[in-house]
Amino acid sequence: MKVAVIGLGLIGGSLALDIKKAFPTSVIVGMDTNKQHLSKALELKIISSEITFEELNTADVVIVSIPVNYAISEVSKILDLVNESAVVIDVGSTKLPICEAVKMHTNRRQFLATHPIAGTEFSGPDAALLGLFKNKTNIICDIEKTAPQLQKRALQIFEAIGMNLRYMNPEAHDKHIAYVSHLSHISSFMLGKTVLEKEKNERDIFDMAGSGFASTVRLAKSSPKMWTPIFQQNKTNVIETLEEYINNLNHFKTLIQNDDFEGVFKEMEDTNYIKQVLKGIY
Amino acid sequence: MKVAVIGLGLIGGSLALDIKKAFPTSVIVGMDTNKQHLSKALELKIISSEITFEELNTADVVIVSIPVNYAISEVSKILDLVNESAVVIDVGSTKLPICEAVKMHTNRRQFLATHPIAGTEFSGPDAALLGLFKNKTNIICDIEKTAPQLQKRALQIFEAIGMNLRYMNPEAHDKHIAYVSHLSHISSFMLGKTVLEKEKNERDIFDMAGSGFASTVRLAKSSPKMWTPIFQQNKTNVIETLEEYINNLNHFKTLIQNDDFEGVFKEMEDTNYIKQVLKGIY
Repeated sequence: MKVAVIGLGLIGGSLALDIKKAFPTSVIVGMDTNKQHLSKALELKIISSEITFEELNTADVVIVSIPVNYAISEVSKILDLVNESAVVIDVGSTKLPICEAVKMHTNRRQFLATHPIAGTEFSGPDAALLGLFKNKTNIICDIEKTAPQLQKRALQIFEAIGMNLRYMNPEAHDKHIAYVSHLSHISSFMLGKTVLEKEKNERDIFDMAGSGFASTVRLAKSSPKMWTPIFQQNKTNVIETLEEYINNLNHFKTLIQNDDFEGVFKEMEDTNYIKQVLKGIY
Repeated sequence: MKVAVIGLGLIGGSLALDIKKAFPTSVIVGMDTNKQHLSKALELKIISSEITFEELNTADVVIVSIPVNYAISEVSKILDLVNESAVVIDVGSTKLPICEAVKMHTNRRQFLATHPIAGTEFSGPDAALLGLFKNKTNIICDIEKTAPQLQKRALQIFEAIGMNLRYMNPEAHDKHIAYVSHLSHISSFMLGKTVLEKEKNERDIFDMAGSGFASTVRLAKSSPKMWTPIFQQNKTNVIETLEEYINNLNHFKTLIQNDDFEGVFKEMEDTNYIKQVLKGIY
């Protein structure tokens, strides 16, 4: 099995490592518009060699792991180039725009839209981790629109690297992921911004930051290049979640302002239920 | 050295464990209004025996690690009871109210206000951890108001358990800690609330939550009993930080609404500077 990975960052690089481990006889090749990332991926043996667009017709599996704005145009081009038994898998964080973009493509049945929910706040091939996907969820969208043999090949790969598969339509994916992923990133970025702004005038503030702050602000280290097009493509859902979040913050502020500390207590007590919910995540 | 720990939760319990390790000949005793916590602390050998208020005059060091609303009244009572060479150390998350409360006490010079910045989202003696304070910061307030011999004894203890000491007035402490600790807790609680509210109608949303969400929402597991009086005592600063945070979120939302994605990119790129800042924290 020859697997071509387009985009050798955290996700593409980690997939390459895991697939090679699960399928030792497979050949993993790749490309990246960032030449430093490409050299690094070769140096770290994430891929065995480079592949060009012209050679893509030799691949059995093509994984597209690039920022979602580029995926929109690149996936269609790649579907034009691959051989008729290859499967093209996208792994971006938004699913409706890519599914819409390939909807009318002649080779639509060779495409599978997925979102492996795994990652760290780091990026690039240096950040690639063996085992990143173990016990993580992969959301598979519009499975019925992919040819059965190619569904099978793709899903076997994700199962072999330890992922739990869930099926969902792209609209539901984009709506739900706005809550559990996109909103977390914005809340973290804006927390980081608020504290950094304050720090300009108040030296030493970070001496006082503990592990709680570090944990809450961790996602503010994430790549703007990756996240800007995600917010752009999922604009409507992101704005809706942000409005609900801001309303909740304003309500909490009003409770404090009105000295309603029973209300403040109750808000936190009710939200403690998140403990039960999070048990399954780590 | 006999050390009495009032309040055997995460912080009190962890201090007891660390002090015993650093001073093997010390005797660590304690009390807790929660009888289950007291039994648990005895069972886990966090303390060697119970101490009553009547016996507090036998202690050389008294550590008060109880919710900040109780600390206000209890510290004054304890200062009435201890012998004249004992030091009473408070370790709560707000510092101005406690410093105000003991300001006119006859034994003010036997009191030291501190804030060891360490913890987890868990609570109670089960959550106590040996080594919790190693390489963490302890903010010492109004050091000059404590008798030199007692300053020395208290600071020796904190140095022996591995803490870095910083000196600050209580006003500055409460203002800065609102940014790096209190705001993180509120942002996390409200993120948890927003997602839980959504989940009522949307099953399976948490299957999609990854480690990023878990990290951002971790502090929403914290104890409402501990945090409500902190927000109450630090009301003015907390409201100020919340307002800045909400303004930043509204601005980010407006950028998205106006399709100003260069602006969105820049906000995130600027905030990535937090990477440098966080390097020192873990």
